[in-house]
Amino acid sequence: MRNLTMLTDLYQLTMMYGYYKTGAYEEEAVYDLFFRRQNEMTNHAVCAGLEQVIELIENLKFQEEDIQYLRSLHLFDEAFLAFLKDFKFTGDLYAMPEGTIVFPMEPLIRVRSPICEAQLLETALLNIVNHQTLIATKASRVCYSAQGDDVFEFGLRRAQGPDAGIYGARAAIIGGCTSTSNVLTAQMFGAPAAGTHAHSWVMSFPTELDAFRAYANLYPNTCVLLVDTYNTLKSGVPNAIKVFQEQRRKGFEPIGIRLDSGDLAYLSKQARRMLDDAGFPDCRIFASGDLDEYTIADLKSQGAKIDVWGVGTRLITGHDHPALGGVYKLAAIYPDGVEIPKLKISENANKITNPGEKKVARLYSREDGKAIADLIMLASEELDETKPLRIFDPVETWKHMTVKDYTVRYLLVPVYQKGELVYRSPILPEIAAYARAEQNTFWDEYLRVNRPHIYKVDLSDKLYDLKRQMIAEKTDFD
Amino acid sequence: MRNLTMLTDLYQLTMMYGYYKTGAYEEEAVYDLFFRRQNEMTNHAVCAGLEQVIELIENLKFQEEDIQYLRSLHLFDEAFLAFLKDFKFTGDLYAMPEGTIVFPMEPLIRVRSPICEAQLLETALLNIVNHQTLIATKASRVCYSAQGDDVFEFGLRRAQGPDAGIYGARAAIIGGCTSTSNVLTAQMFGAPAAGTHAHSWVMSFPTELDAFRAYANLYPNTCVLLVDTYNTLKSGVPNAIKVFQEQRRKGFEPIGIRLDSGDLAYLSKQARRMLDDAGFPDCRIFASGDLDEYTIADLKSQGAKIDVWGVGTRLITGHDHPALGGVYKLAAIYPDGVEIPKLKISENANKITNPGEKKVARLYSREDGKAIADLIMLASEELDETKPLRIFDPVETWKHMTVKDYTVRYLLVPVYQKGELVYRSPILPEIAAYARAEQNTFWDEYLRVNRPHIYKVDLSDKLYDLKRQMIAEKTDFD
Repeated sequence: MRNLTMLTDLYQLTMMYGYYKTGAYEEEAVYDLFFRRQNEMTNHAVCAGLEQVIELIENLKFQEEDIQYLRSLHLFDEAFLAFLKDFKFTGDLYAMPEGTIVFPMEPLIRVRSPICEAQLLETALLNIVNHQTLIATKASRVCYSAQGDDVFEFGLRRAQGPDAGIYGARAAIIGGCTSTSNVLTAQMFGAPAAGTHAHSWVMSFPTELDAFRAYANLYPNTCVLLVDTYNTLKSGVPNAIKVFQEQRRKGFEPIGIRLDSGDLAYLSKQARRMLDDAGFPDCRIFASGDLDEYTIADLKSQGAKIDVWGVGTRLITGHDHPALGGVYKLAAIYPDGVEIPKLKISENANKITNPGEKKVARLYSREDGKAIADLIMLASEELDETKPLRIFDPVETWKHMTVKDYTVRYLLVPVYQKGELVYRSPILPEIAAYARAEQNTFWDEYLRVNRPHIYKVDLSDKLYDLKRQMIAEKTDFD
Repeated sequence: MRNLTMLTDLYQLTMMYGYYKTGAYEEEAVYDLFFRRQNEMTNHAVCAGLEQVIELIENLKFQEEDIQYLRSLHLFDEAFLAFLKDFKFTGDLYAMPEGTIVFPMEPLIRVRSPICEAQLLETALLNIVNHQTLIATKASRVCYSAQGDDVFEFGLRRAQGPDAGIYGARAAIIGGCTSTSNVLTAQMFGAPAAGTHAHSWVMSFPTELDAFRAYANLYPNTCVLLVDTYNTLKSGVPNAIKVFQEQRRKGFEPIGIRLDSGDLAYLSKQARRMLDDAGFPDCRIFASGDLDEYTIADLKSQGAKIDVWGVGTRLITGHDHPALGGVYKLAAIYPDGVEIPKLKISENANKITNPGEKKVARLYSREDGKAIADLIMLASEELDETKPLRIFDPVETWKHMTVKDYTVRYLLVPVYQKGELVYRSPILPEIAAYARAEQNTFWDEYLRVNRPHIYKVDLSDKLYDLKRQMIAEKTDFD
C-alpha cells in the first residue's frame, strides 16, 4: 500500500500550521466534497474512488523523511513537526457508496474532524474522487450510447500516467464497461481482461495470412483478428474468413474481427455481409478508433454493424471535459462544540455553498421504485415518509411540487466514525452490479447523453432558510 | 520503487506468447515512439518522462503473484510462464533527453531488442511519455504566454489520480513553471514548493481581518493573502492593506495578494492602484482561476496587472487536448540478423510510418546558433557538416532548400545498450535549465502559441527512397 500522506498542496500544511499555532487545530470542522453543474459531464455523475480514499486514510502517516523534508522548508516549528509525527485521522467520514448516481451540489463525501485533519485530506480526496468519478461518469455515458452492447476499455497508453490508467480502468468498469485491456487493473481488482493483437503482429509476419493463421492457431477458441493493417475489405476480411474456414474444419468457431480505422459504418456493413455470406453470421465485429458517446450514437443511427465497442483515449482522459471540477468546502466549525454554519458567497448564485452539516435524501416512488427527487437537508433533520412532502427549487423557488407515496433513502453512509473504519468496500464486480442497479432507478430521460431532463435537487425548508439568512448577513458590506 | 511490469495491455502478453510459440521471440525488432501532427499541442512538444521510463525498466520483473494471476487466465502455457519469470530487458534504447524540443514524426524513443521485450514495453512507455510530454508541452505554452512572469503549478486536486498530479507537476517544471503546490513532487524531485492559504482559512475565522492577521503573523516574510473570499475590492484588498501596514510597522514587507475569481483584468488593475496608493508598489499580484495559455495572453493584452500566474486544472489535465496521441510503431525486424524495414500503410499520407532503424539530426546555423531544420535519417547514415545539404519536404516535395554553414546534433542518445543502463538522468532543476536553453535555440516564430511557423522536419534521401519503394510494393493489391 502506498503512503500518499505528502500528496497535498503546500497551503494545506501552512494552514494546518496556522490552526496549530492559533490553537484552533483541535476544533472540529465539517467539509463537503461536491461538484457544481458545469457541462454535460455534471448533469449527473457516477461516484467512484471511495476505496482509494480509504486506502489513503489507512496509510496516513508522516514518515521520518517527510518530517525532515518539511523541516528543510523553514516554514514550521519543531512542535508542529512533532504534532505531524503523530498525525492520524480521528474524525467521521460519510460518503456515497461507489456507483451511486450523484447530482450537482450534493455532498459525495462529508468529513467532520479536527480542522487540521480535514484540511490535510482535502487535496488527496479531491484528486482521487475527481478522477475516478469523472471516468466512471464518462464510461456510463459511453455505455448508455452503446445500448447494452459490450464496451471494452483500452485507453492505458493514453492515460495520464500509471494511476490514471489503473484507476481509470477501475472506474470504467464501475461506469459499465465489461472489460479492460489493462492487465494490472484486472489483476488488482478482479476485472475481466480482454485483448487480441496489434498491427505490429501482422507486420512482423511475411504476409497478413501468415499472421492471422499463427494467431488463430494460438487461440483457436478466443480468436479476434485485426483486419485493417493493409486493406480492410480487399485483404483483411478475406484473409480472416479464409483462416476462420480453416479453423472451422478443425472444429473451432471464430469469435470476431476488429476494425480500427476507416469509415466504421461503411466497413462494418461490408464486413458483416462478407462474414454472413461466408457462413459466419455469429462472428462478432469489434470496432475501435477515437470512439466516445457521440460517435457511438452516430454509428448506431447509421446502422453500423458493430457488436463490441473498444474505447480508449476519449474515455480514459474524459476528452472534452478532462476534469470533474469537484470542490471541498467548509460547511461548519464547532469552536466550543457548538455548530457555527459557514458559507462561501459568490456573485454567481450557483457558486454559493450550502451551510451546515448536511445529508442527502433520495425520494423514490412507492409505485414504480423510480427516483423522484433528492433533498439536501441538515444532518439533524428527519423525513417522515407517511406525510406528503412539499419541495421546491432552491433558485427558481416558484417551481414546487408535493410528493406522496414515497420512500426515503439517505445516500451518505458512515465510512469512518471517530477515526475508526466502519465500512467494508465491496469488490469491483459488486460495485459494478450496484451501479447498474442504481441506473435502473432513474428514468432514461434523466440519464440520456444529450440534454437530459434536469433531476430535482432541492433544499429542505430549514437549510433553505439558514442559507438565505446567512446570505443576507454576508452581503451587508455591498 | 514501484514494479509496473503488469502495467500493460493484455494483447502485449498474448502477442508475446505468440512470438514465443512461433520461435520468433529471440529475433530483434525496432520500434519508434513518436506522435503525429494533430492539433496545436503537437506543433512541437517538450520531451518528458524518460526518468520514469528508466525506473520502469530497472524494476521490470514478473513477481510470483503475477505469474499465478497470468496462469489463472488460461491463456498461456507453463513454458511461457517460466520464460516470463526470467524476463528482463536486454536490448538498446535511445531517447531524446527530457526537455528536448521534438516535432511530429520524430522518434522520441527508439527501442531495439528481442521482439517480446519491445512489445512488453510498449504500453507503459506510451503511458509515461504521452502523459509527461503532454503536460511539459502545455506548461511551455502557458509559460510562453506569461512572457517571463512566474507561473505556479497547482492542479493536483484536479489531476487524473495521484501519478497525474505527481508526474504532471514534474513535467510542468520541465515545461517552465517555477514552482508547484504539490508537496510530494517537491520532495521527490527537489522542485520549489509554493502556496498560501485557501478561502476556508478566511471562513474559519470570525472576520476576514482576523484571518489575514493570523496568517501574516504566521508568515511575516512570505505572506500572500487571498482577497476574494467575500468581496475583493470592498473587503479583501482593504483588509490586506491594513494588515500589510501593521506588518510594516513591525519591520516586515508583504509579498503579495491573490485573486482567484471575478474579472481578473479589472480587479488586478483596481487592486494595483489601491496597493500603490497605500505605499505597496512592490507587493505582487497573484492570479488564478481557470487560466491557460489563451486566457493569460488575453489578460496580458488587456493590460492586467498580474505578476504571478497560478495555473491549475487546465495545465495539469491538458484541458482542450488531454492526450498527446503518441504511438509506438514497428520499424524493422531482423529475422536472421539482417534488417527488414517495416512500414504501416494508411490512406492518410501523414499516418504512413517511416521504415527502418532511424535517427534524428538537428541542423543549427553556425552564424546564430539557431535550429534550421531536422532530418529523420537511417541510423547508418552520417551527415558531413563540411558539405552543403539539400533537404526537401517529404510530402510537398517541391519545397526544398540547401543548408550551408551548419552544425549537426543527433538528438537520440543511448540510454540502454545490451540491457545495461548507460545514461544518468539529470536532476529536475538541470532538466528545467536544459529545457529553457533548448527553447532559446528556436526562433519565436516556431514556438509561438497561435499558428506557429511550421518547422522543417525532412527525410534523408535514403529514407525517402526506401519509404517510397515500400509504399509502391505494399499497395499492389489495390
